[in-house]
Amino acid sequence: MNRAGIIHTQQHHHLYLTSSHEAIIRIQTPKGEGVNVTIIHGDPYDWKDGSWQATQTEMKLLKTDDLYDYWSTSVSMPYSRMRYGFKIKTETETLFYTERGFYTERPAEISAYFCLPYAHDTEVFSPPPWVQNTVWYQIFPERFANGNPSRDPDTTLPWGSEPPKPDTFFGGDLDGVIQHLDYLQQLGITGIYFTPIFEAFSNHKYDTIDYLSIDPHFGDEDTLRTLIQESHKRGIRVMLDAVFNHSGYYFAPFQDVLQHGENSRYKDWFHPFELPLQPDGDRPNYETFAFVSSMPKLNTKHPDVRQYLLKVATYWVEEFDIDGWRLDVANEVDHDFWRSFRNEVKNLKKDVYILGEIWHQSSPWLQGDQFDAVMNYPLTDAIQGYALHQQSSHDAQVALTKHLMSYPASVNAVQFNMLDSHDTARILTTSKENKALVKLQYALLFSFPGSPCIYYGDEIGMAGENDPGCRACMIWDEAKQDKDMLAFLTQLIALRKHHPAFGTYDELFFHQSDDPAVLHYQTSTADETLYFVFNRSLATKSITLPKENQEQWMDLFTEK
Amino acid sequence: MNRAGIIHTQQHHHLYLTSSHEAIIRIQTPKGEGVNVTIIHGDPYDWKDGSWQATQTEMKLLKTDDLYDYWSTSVSMPYSRMRYGFKIKTETETLFYTERGFYTERPAEISAYFCLPYAHDTEVFSPPPWVQNTVWYQIFPERFANGNPSRDPDTTLPWGSEPPKPDTFFGGDLDGVIQHLDYLQQLGITGIYFTPIFEAFSNHKYDTIDYLSIDPHFGDEDTLRTLIQESHKRGIRVMLDAVFNHSGYYFAPFQDVLQHGENSRYKDWFHPFELPLQPDGDRPNYETFAFVSSMPKLNTKHPDVRQYLLKVATYWVEEFDIDGWRLDVANEVDHDFWRSFRNEVKNLKKDVYILGEIWHQSSPWLQGDQFDAVMNYPLTDAIQGYALHQQSSHDAQVALTKHLMSYPASVNAVQFNMLDSHDTARILTTSKENKALVKLQYALLFSFPGSPCIYYGDEIGMAGENDPGCRACMIWDEAKQDKDMLAFLTQLIALRKHHPAFGTYDELFFHQSDDPAVLHYQTSTADETLYFVFNRSLATKSITLPKENQEQWMDLFTEK
Repeated sequence: MNRAGIIHTQQHHHLYLTSSHEAIIRIQTPKGEGVNVTIIHGDPYDWKDGSWQATQTEMKLLKTDDLYDYWSTSVSMPYSRMRYGFKIKTETETLFYTERGFYTERPAEISAYFCLPYAHDTEVFSPPPWVQNTVWYQIFPERFANGNPSRDPDTTLPWGSEPPKPDTFFGGDLDGVIQHLDYLQQLGITGIYFTPIFEAFSNHKYDTIDYLSIDPHFGDEDTLRTLIQESHKRGIRVMLDAVFNHSGYYFAPFQDVLQHGENSRYKDWFHPFELPLQPDGDRPNYETFAFVSSMPKLNTKHPDVRQYLLKVATYWVEEFDIDGWRLDVANEVDHDFWRSFRNEVKNLKKDVYILGEIWHQSSPWLQGDQFDAVMNYPLTDAIQGYALHQQSSHDAQVALTKHLMSYPASVNAVQFNMLDSHDTARILTTSKENKALVKLQYALLFSFPGSPCIYYGDEIGMAGENDPGCRACMIWDEAKQDKDMLAFLTQLIALRKHHPAFGTYDELFFHQSDDPAVLHYQTSTADETLYFVFNRSLATKSITLPKENQEQWMDLFTEK
Repeated sequence: MNRAGIIHTQQHHHLYLTSSHEAIIRIQTPKGEGVNVTIIHGDPYDWKDGSWQATQTEMKLLKTDDLYDYWSTSVSMPYSRMRYGFKIKTETETLFYTERGFYTERPAEISAYFCLPYAHDTEVFSPPPWVQNTVWYQIFPERFANGNPSRDPDTTLPWGSEPPKPDTFFGGDLDGVIQHLDYLQQLGITGIYFTPIFEAFSNHKYDTIDYLSIDPHFGDEDTLRTLIQESHKRGIRVMLDAVFNHSGYYFAPFQDVLQHGENSRYKDWFHPFELPLQPDGDRPNYETFAFVSSMPKLNTKHPDVRQYLLKVATYWVEEFDIDGWRLDVANEVDHDFWRSFRNEVKNLKKDVYILGEIWHQSSPWLQGDQFDAVMNYPLTDAIQGYALHQQSSHDAQVALTKHLMSYPASVNAVQFNMLDSHDTARILTTSKENKALVKLQYALLFSFPGSPCIYYGDEIGMAGENDPGCRACMIWDEAKQDKDMLAFLTQLIALRKHHPAFGTYDELFFHQSDDPAVLHYQTSTADETLYFVFNRSLATKSITLPKENQEQWMDLFTEK
């Protein structure tokens, strides 16, 4: 056996809890070695006549990628404790794999085995249950709808009169959202993610001036309260965007440091390399988001900054009953801050969704003590690789499998999945205006574990390059809306709601496809199995579906 | 290449910080593939003319075990941020390995690369600097010395008059320790680890009655104060044992639950399966340490329990200036509790050593936010495997390498290393009374990274089976002491103190040994190289030492 490729790490993708009495255990073995895997497990203190009372459970082959077979099983722990090891057999060889390495005989010493010393109920990853059934809609408030022209900035341009530029304003506001809640309800979405709405300088509001005020161009406290109440009435949850990695240039404490330098009581709120601050020039002399001088990095390790930001975090939950926090540039803030953030917020409202903006593998933040999910861009990339970049269906299967297997099922189930956002080109543009491919990708997205999100306007066929192009004004003129796309996404949302097999995880099973353009997999619950067959090419393809259950086939889209 | 065996995980054994501007990165490749490894790295926001400004650094082959080559390098991060990937080359093949998997061409998309988003100074693993230069001495107070017979329990037996039993008392106390501090100073040790000294029922005191009182058989507050002051005067630090996983049967809150059941205000301090509690019978109807009914598991997730135990933790630091906390059964207490514990204790005294009792791989507790070290029993087992259990020197090298490579160098440097303790047989007994093998093992222990500990009495040749045998009364009659062993350990301690190459880590280099009985490695600093050559057999062996520096050879023990 290729021992170097047999891997179990006790990290959450290999070991996670579903309760204090059940663990899911996974192990990777090199692909196609024809092994079977058994787990040997027992309570470390359960001894009889001098021998450890371990039992053996066969593991199930869960998934396969290009390099590994992934095995999984659940193990119950009556006393919340476990020691365990693996027995890996081929026809000619039996290996025992433990914390201490490989043995050809089953090790007698319990100290060699992997140890799960105690499963605490508080350490079970516990996201809000509503998230996995939610379909999100992302709104960039300055560009969704202008419901109250009296709030418009002075420089406001007529709605949609020109393509957006980094500094243009079109007067979008929260009143406009309220006026279109019925539209969103008809579309079927059940959650709105708002990019920032707090007072800020720019149109995107990621450069906060005051974390405790709503931007006057967007509305006031009453507007937000009404928006949230009216949303909740329609079964729509509301998530706001917290920009805690950095403040804006006009945030009062930063202005204070700019003005008073060494004498500012706020100088430790930031990370100056030296004082006075020099925001101009090639690179500022203080830490920033990227090298953007108008976004000075906040010192979230400073007690006063922590206290201030945690007050912000709880204020909007307590006073306005928001349902989620999306955390901007979340990976650049320290873990200790996020742990306190989670404690404070969840103590107020247990089922708030905490979503980090992280674009890469995010295990350190998804251990149960910080975030419930991250923005799942690696999934976006895998989908686009297949649909748009000529990656074969086999390679797509590998990428999707690798990604799913890098997290527990409980994490995948609540990830925030999207094809585009205010930080990318729109999917229609990425897809070179090919609407069929957009539909294919949305169908793929909706079939997957996690809660999918539609970026405002995608549903009516809006296009746009990355910032600023993707931030154009929503098209409300029905004559200019793509009604076919709207009907498709409305139907897709309804299908996902009515078929719980959408988004199932361990039961997502890939069928081998001989055609690089055809991706074929199934998801299932106890009651139904859904077959997803995608063809990214222009050519007509035929595939053979499995024979079982043939009489009960139904095309979900045509209901025939 | 055997891709399934190329592994980099972003866990601390593969990626750790030495400061907010420097990371150590490691990667494993399958052994003996003849590769060389280069890391491609750069600040993610450092772009010029549309291309990412990454640099390449060659990695160094650090160690090798039976399956893997381990590569390492340090990378500097001027802005505390990094994206990185690996270039792995053989004579015929070049692979690029990133978060997204393998590529045959260097990926252009920065999103494919591994990400270290931000290196916070607060997330650098920072143990107390004094630990790596400390030599510990473990004292089981009931058995070290009876300095004040007026404190003796009624049932006290004459000192050393019979072999210890689970319930015998011999009258050892803190006064006895004070009286022998000069002896310890002469031995050369610089830290004492005391098993519990708080009021408890048993002779071992792991069943606490009152966490805020010193056991009256051991002394009072003045005794402890004197002990610590006198120790500090002699350059000896003092570590106490905190038993927070469970209380004793006679702990007042547990007695309250026993008596009042449902009506006890303390019922949530424990984990009853049902009430009233039934301590008798095969297995108690509440959670315990193992299945020991006299050690009920504390609910460290309950706010009142936390507050109480954290008060205990800070009280002994604040009032008595202790230097370390050894945490009993530390792996069965929740991580959140230990994070608070660390914060509270380190806020009071920054360089307190926090040592968890964990017998298995302990990465989850050694991330910098909980413990500084654990009791390094896997090292003990590896040493004994070679010295006592006929494991070949090659297998010992593999086990030692695997173990060292499962942690950052900064963790290994402060681990608590020992050959025996109150929870094992004494090393002389494990070694079947072979004193030469005991010396060999102590020399091996002292040569290794981490801070070594001598279990009281080992230095004068005491033997004893596991509990209760290993807890015999210290022999103070010089005629009965093994003076040769005492001289050896005294010299070994002095050598370790005077030669900083003892205990170096990345510079610990194994020489291939053709003889399974001969283990041969070197450690070094810039100024000196130490060669360790062990022969566990009775036969005389000869080895050839490297030619370089031959004129400067010196035998450390004979100084010739």
